[in-house]
Amino acid sequence: MLDAPLLDRVRIVLCGTSHPGNIGASARAMKTMGLGSLYLVNPQRFPASEAVAMASNAADLLEYAVVCGSLDEALTGTVFAAACTARSRDLPHAVLTPREAAARLLQERAAGAVALVFGPEKTGLTSGEVSRCGAIAMIPTDPRCASLNLAAAVQVFTYELWQSAQQLPESSPQDAYQAASYEDVEFFFNHLEQTLYDIRFLDPSQPKRLMRRLRRLFQRTRLEKEEVNILRGILTAAQKARSNS
Amino acid sequence: MLDAPLLDRVRIVLCGTSHPGNIGASARAMKTMGLGSLYLVNPQRFPASEAVAMASNAADLLEYAVVCGSLDEALTGTVFAAACTARSRDLPHAVLTPREAAARLLQERAAGAVALVFGPEKTGLTSGEVSRCGAIAMIPTDPRCASLNLAAAVQVFTYELWQSAQQLPESSPQDAYQAASYEDVEFFFNHLEQTLYDIRFLDPSQPKRLMRRLRRLFQRTRLEKEEVNILRGILTAAQKARSNS
Repeated sequence: MLDAPLLDRVRIVLCGTSHPGNIGASARAMKTMGLGSLYLVNPQRFPASEAVAMASNAADLLEYAVVCGSLDEALTGTVFAAACTARSRDLPHAVLTPREAAARLLQERAAGAVALVFGPEKTGLTSGEVSRCGAIAMIPTDPRCASLNLAAAVQVFTYELWQSAQQLPESSPQDAYQAASYEDVEFFFNHLEQTLYDIRFLDPSQPKRLMRRLRRLFQRTRLEKEEVNILRGILTAAQKARSNS
Repeated sequence: MLDAPLLDRVRIVLCGTSHPGNIGASARAMKTMGLGSLYLVNPQRFPASEAVAMASNAADLLEYAVVCGSLDEALTGTVFAAACTARSRDLPHAVLTPREAAARLLQERAAGAVALVFGPEKTGLTSGEVSRCGAIAMIPTDPRCASLNLAAAVQVFTYELWQSAQQLPESSPQDAYQAASYEDVEFFFNHLEQTLYDIRFLDPSQPKRLMRRLRRLFQRTRLEKEEVNILRGILTAAQKARSNS
């Protein structure tokens, strides 16, 4: 894996895409910039002839595209994901420009696969989906007209990725720490949520908002595998203490 | 004119576009990045419903688009144009990245309107068209797959223009010299070509290659109005000398 080209570990994840033509055009955009790893979460229609027509000579990416039933599935195995959005969010993560997002993704990819996540054309990603990602990335636009076509947005981000990759040394050194995987972190969040119920900290009528805040806190820090083990140890201890009380 | 927003003087010129959908998608790309001035040279089909459909909320740009019969017509009134191409050319101009092209266009626009010129989807610009422009701009891509969709290429360039414009001071100072207009320079080239015939310097069986080299030479320097007057004075003198000999 480490010998693979720089951009092999960067997944493009398209969630709930309405128009198959946009999937094809996104595949073409990816291929021009050296990316090959396309994940589709619940596309409305795929495979589709319009996707192949718009892919031009990137039809191979459509053949190898991984179709998933959830964003969780598409992010399994990744160590970092950035959510691409056109709106500012009520719970602001770090908001990166495409150039900053590209640099960050290439830096994180030393520890494993990374992902750029795009929402459906009309609605964008939900807050829940954004909260599964470690950062928000936004294309600076004229505020009077902020909505890029999906494939055009993929082109801008992949263009920045290609440029960043050209500026890096041939083989970038592996980071010293072992990053927690997406699954590790999600197990931790599930464990955390359950524990907060157990200790009656979480208001069962409004659990989501608090969990989003906690997700944001921990995702900003890029957890290491060992740290997740420690945190889960603490949670288990808290659960035991509660059941013993 | 000087009080107009920075990007008002930047024309996007699409030559011989085959698919009206690409015209619409290009208009949308422009509008997200604050550009509004679209010129269409011999589009295969325009107006067209596919263009409107792909323009999303940028249909007003299509309404105001200027349809031209030649690239000359589309460049009339400009002081600088960059030709966007995916191929390296036999007569290399300065080749700019999109970022460099954006900076250059915004710099030149202090003297008047500027243009970014795109060719037909399948073939790109001809050498003759490229030689009417002061620079070549090329999007860096994976060499195995160099061909971006037309509207995706427009999105990359306009994204760089928008970013460059944000970094400039509100009102950029007018350059001291008065730049020659596109028409001034074309009159000069025509005058030069005629003079070279008159003085029997130009081989009538192969006039184009030499003229392309001369165009490249003079366009690299960004002629001033006064310089064009001087050069044309020299040409007139050479013609008179010849007819008197």
